[in-house]
Amino acid sequence: MSVENLNTVSLGHSLQKEVSGARAAIETRLATIVPSAQTWPARLHEAQRHALLSPGKRFRPLLCVFVAKGAGLDGEASIDVGCVAEMVHAASLILDDLPCMDDAALRRNQPTTHIAFDESTAILTATALLNRAFGVLSRLKHVDAEKRIELVDLLSYAVGSKGLIAGQMADLANSDNNASIAEIERLNTLKTGALFDFSVEGAAVLAGAKAAQRAALKDFSYHLGLAFQLMDDVKDTIMTDEEAEKSVGRDVGKATILALTGSDAAMERLAAYIDSAKAAIARANLNNETTLNVVLDSQFSFLKS
Amino acid sequence: MSVENLNTVSLGHSLQKEVSGARAAIETRLATIVPSAQTWPARLHEAQRHALLSPGKRFRPLLCVFVAKGAGLDGEASIDVGCVAEMVHAASLILDDLPCMDDAALRRNQPTTHIAFDESTAILTATALLNRAFGVLSRLKHVDAEKRIELVDLLSYAVGSKGLIAGQMADLANSDNNASIAEIERLNTLKTGALFDFSVEGAAVLAGAKAAQRAALKDFSYHLGLAFQLMDDVKDTIMTDEEAEKSVGRDVGKATILALTGSDAAMERLAAYIDSAKAAIARANLNNETTLNVVLDSQFSFLKS
Repeated sequence: MSVENLNTVSLGHSLQKEVSGARAAIETRLATIVPSAQTWPARLHEAQRHALLSPGKRFRPLLCVFVAKGAGLDGEASIDVGCVAEMVHAASLILDDLPCMDDAALRRNQPTTHIAFDESTAILTATALLNRAFGVLSRLKHVDAEKRIELVDLLSYAVGSKGLIAGQMADLANSDNNASIAEIERLNTLKTGALFDFSVEGAAVLAGAKAAQRAALKDFSYHLGLAFQLMDDVKDTIMTDEEAEKSVGRDVGKATILALTGSDAAMERLAAYIDSAKAAIARANLNNETTLNVVLDSQFSFLKS
Repeated sequence: MSVENLNTVSLGHSLQKEVSGARAAIETRLATIVPSAQTWPARLHEAQRHALLSPGKRFRPLLCVFVAKGAGLDGEASIDVGCVAEMVHAASLILDDLPCMDDAALRRNQPTTHIAFDESTAILTATALLNRAFGVLSRLKHVDAEKRIELVDLLSYAVGSKGLIAGQMADLANSDNNASIAEIERLNTLKTGALFDFSVEGAAVLAGAKAAQRAALKDFSYHLGLAFQLMDDVKDTIMTDEEAEKSVGRDVGKATILALTGSDAAMERLAAYIDSAKAAIARANLNNETTLNVVLDSQFSFLKS
């Protein structure tokens, strides 16, 4: 092995170590961000912990932490804002899996919250996670009130009538096989992109990023959201429950890019989304572009398998 | 009629007029605080408007507006904070009425949200109302960021694991007929009191009330919450659906103060709660005690019928 290759390998190792270190810090914070399982009413908190602490990729918190770091801010606040995104993500999964929505029994290789507990507990748990997310933002340490309020505003926008909830409403009504690619992309941007936008833009707010950097980061999270949702659609179609570690086949009859264009074109489109996301990172002028690419590649590793 | 009586009557009229003026301003604001019914996705916004704009007493917003006014602050911000309480109240009613919770078909004399629409729409609508409530707080006009963040924190506390959601969890598990009055009061404080606390304490924050005034106001909302929940329990037992304008008989088998002590003792206790609430208002040294008493009496008017 040449010295040059050796350097590349050890750089790779040190980046991997940086990413796994951040992931460990995120797990540690998630474990304390909601009340203990013994806190009254215990069932509510057991269910919160079941949904939030089940083994996940923690992609949204990792994004937040590394974008903030690349824009010049290292520290606890970006972990907290990342955990906020993870809490809202967990809440949205609880609701999506309900019998009246996707009716899924398996998530992250364990029973969904309404199966492990019951429907009313699941609904109240999701509501509690969303509510607590705002509470965490209101108490961010060493972040001035103006920034905390901007983060509250960003989260409310990402979740609301122009974000996650609108996307879920539209997805439930989605059976329009005449939908265009543009319409499906719009839906995916709401359903998945909104919380990526919050994670990335939240990091930019914390780091005090300037307008040009924020614009490039917005472009990054936009393409990332599209890539991630398309990958999810592919998994839903080609994987088994065991491989995907969740109930698959939920998209049958829905208008997806995969259904519309077929598998080959969808995979090409996915690669193009990822390229656009990486190009946007390059434009964002972060000081840790290589690390962010490692984070991205780990999420899309199944493309190489 | 003596001149003195005439003055009392005209004072009564002018107070009534003040209260109905505030109620009209609240209705006007509620109608614009969530997106129009035409905004995409229309079904989500139709359902929000169905739940939020159905004829309600608007007791929480009225409390917020008049407590703020009495503490020296008049203006739009207290209407908005009051509307926030109403939005969260509407969200909690949507969830309480779901088939997996109280399974109620009628609310405010109209079909509950899951009946008028469907379960998934109802759940997403409740989530959207809670989420939007935080968004409204983040954008309060002419209120500095420190106060807005304090309000976000107060709301998250009122809704969360030590408030509304904990109360609803405990209420769903409530079938303990050996519960003591103290335990039932604790439950009622969470289930109903938490949002009264937010309405009253939110007003105090807006008005910049000092510690002693805030303490008296806390005592006021505490007793008011107990009174209101007990009145609700009485209505659930003695009224028909038509009289209560909602599905009644939901408390059968639950531990309530009414079930525990019987009707006469419960009515005495209710009167004592109201007296304590009024005594606390007197201590709070507001400049509009009489108006607040008019607001209170209008809520408890059925006691005289």
